[in-house]
Amino acid sequence: MQLPVPVIRSDAHLDHDGLIEFLNGAPVPCFESPARALAIENALRDAPGYEFVEPDDHGLEPVLALHDPGLNETLANAWQDALATGMTDGSRPLLPDSFLTGAYAAGHPTSRPGRSHRLWSYAFDTCTPLVGGTYRAARVAVDAALTAVDRVRAGAPLAYALCRPPGHHAGRAMYGGYCFFNNAAISAQALIDHGAQRVAILDIDYHHGNGSQQLFYDRGDVLYLSLHADPERAYPYYTGYQTERGFDAGEGLNRNFPLPERTDGTRYLGVLGDALRLVAEFAPDGPLVVSAGFDTFHLDPIADLALQTDDYAEIGSAISTLGLPVVAVQEGGYAVDALGDNVRALLDGIRGA
Amino acid sequence: MQLPVPVIRSDAHLDHDGLIEFLNGAPVPCFESPARALAIENALRDAPGYEFVEPDDHGLEPVLALHDPGLNETLANAWQDALATGMTDGSRPLLPDSFLTGAYAAGHPTSRPGRSHRLWSYAFDTCTPLVGGTYRAARVAVDAALTAVDRVRAGAPLAYALCRPPGHHAGRAMYGGYCFFNNAAISAQALIDHGAQRVAILDIDYHHGNGSQQLFYDRGDVLYLSLHADPERAYPYYTGYQTERGFDAGEGLNRNFPLPERTDGTRYLGVLGDALRLVAEFAPDGPLVVSAGFDTFHLDPIADLALQTDDYAEIGSAISTLGLPVVAVQEGGYAVDALGDNVRALLDGIRGA
Repeated sequence: MQLPVPVIRSDAHLDHDGLIEFLNGAPVPCFESPARALAIENALRDAPGYEFVEPDDHGLEPVLALHDPGLNETLANAWQDALATGMTDGSRPLLPDSFLTGAYAAGHPTSRPGRSHRLWSYAFDTCTPLVGGTYRAARVAVDAALTAVDRVRAGAPLAYALCRPPGHHAGRAMYGGYCFFNNAAISAQALIDHGAQRVAILDIDYHHGNGSQQLFYDRGDVLYLSLHADPERAYPYYTGYQTERGFDAGEGLNRNFPLPERTDGTRYLGVLGDALRLVAEFAPDGPLVVSAGFDTFHLDPIADLALQTDDYAEIGSAISTLGLPVVAVQEGGYAVDALGDNVRALLDGIRGA
Repeated sequence: MQLPVPVIRSDAHLDHDGLIEFLNGAPVPCFESPARALAIENALRDAPGYEFVEPDDHGLEPVLALHDPGLNETLANAWQDALATGMTDGSRPLLPDSFLTGAYAAGHPTSRPGRSHRLWSYAFDTCTPLVGGTYRAARVAVDAALTAVDRVRAGAPLAYALCRPPGHHAGRAMYGGYCFFNNAAISAQALIDHGAQRVAILDIDYHHGNGSQQLFYDRGDVLYLSLHADPERAYPYYTGYQTERGFDAGEGLNRNFPLPERTDGTRYLGVLGDALRLVAEFAPDGPLVVSAGFDTFHLDPIADLALQTDDYAEIGSAISTLGLPVVAVQEGGYAVDALGDNVRALLDGIRGA
């Protein structure tokens, strides 16, 4: 008989409620909402074979192993600074309007702005509101992922970190795409730091994980594979192309699989098979980290693929054929009504339930 | 008796009406509105000593002398592309939500995005809406500035280009801050191309002219001086510090004068005196280009300095002491009710009326 799958969850995310984002020229309610995590909890609470676990505090060190100290410090202080300087009265989230673009910096020096606008220099979009509870939620999400790592290292074949906020868009010195710290990347790094020599991250979120790609792009010890909507049409637009394959020690260890609109389960599983063969060739000696996004679902409000709930079970089943322990880290997925069922289908597929 | 001052104006700007911008976390009516230019026209039409002149077409070459061809092509096609790809239904301006930041590009390759989002890769803020009439208005604004250059080269001691959209935030491959092409910088370049060896740009807009600074930062033939609100608290945040002084041939030829909140006319004129001494030391052999912004006015809705209408006459008078012909190029100023009087005060001050 199988032991229950640990689901690492916390209430800290409830205080990270950004309310609005600014998308394609208009303010809209933020798709990345507390209701998402609650829906997932509800589905797993009702399902057999799962146990809920609170995250253990892992401190700041694992965060700073990958992220710029300035990013951490700025995220930690941004809300209090904004209240102090009048950037917000506390009722509105912080959303930047001015960005430190590459073209901006070209040819002349730029500076980190003053306290009131420092946060903006780390942001790359207007979709990622920050409020008073954001920093703690982001830190606890990292702890959830690291607790899942602990469980898998202790022998669990699968552990699932119900991370909110998600992480795969967060890079060394940047946040965006609803992400602040890169939970999956930090998990992979923790596995390396615990002695693994080769760790693979499989990213099945609808969006390219530009942060994960950046963090390991020149490294030979972490394979990053991502199936995602073609950035030619889809966020994050600037990365996720097939031509981005890593460099130096990481040459060939970054692999992007851009997908056309309305990609269905059959087609998706075919591409996934190619990715899984690359994982097998890489021969990880540590657990597989899965960046588990569900915005590939056919009803997702901000996406355009066509997966059904049953397809996630097939995806999980395909992942299980690798025979690797799995650290599954929650990323995106905004069709809240189906999100819990989709997460459960994936996890049941991985554990062979 | 003085000849009338040519005021180069056109109706093309009327079709550049962005309607909204996204500022500090909220959508607001765009401060950079057609009403601004209309207010200026009304004030100068009623004043003695001014004549209205339509811009002459100067073609694309002067634009491409400073701006990236990709920026031009993208601005030219963005609206039609957005209609074709469904990014807008035509009723909403284009405002980006995702930016190609420097931190984003760090450590891994990035790409120009597909047709639907290409515009975004040149943008650095969410304050600069683009609509169907924007490109033509921006091109005509360049022509207005170049026509002012022609008039001054033909002997006028002062010509004023009523440019809308403004320009000083536009750099080689970036647009933002309500600006698309850098009208003042293109004017300075045209003067150089017509044989001047040393041209000075004096920027008295409330905001640092990050585009102008970028375009001439390493050049010995153009002196750029800017009095502006300290970027520690004010847009564009990332540049405008005193430490930015140019490099290579441009070493010492970029001079920023950041100003504290509520700077009044007396204090402003003191700093302006320092700037004008630097112009005199530089000994321009061509006309002075003035980036004439009026958001330094005490009632400006997006600014925090404290100039009065009479102060603009004093500023003009101080500028006139240089004894240089002046190409005055309209930049910002959002206190629409006072804008016409303030422009007239400056121009009257320069011409000694």
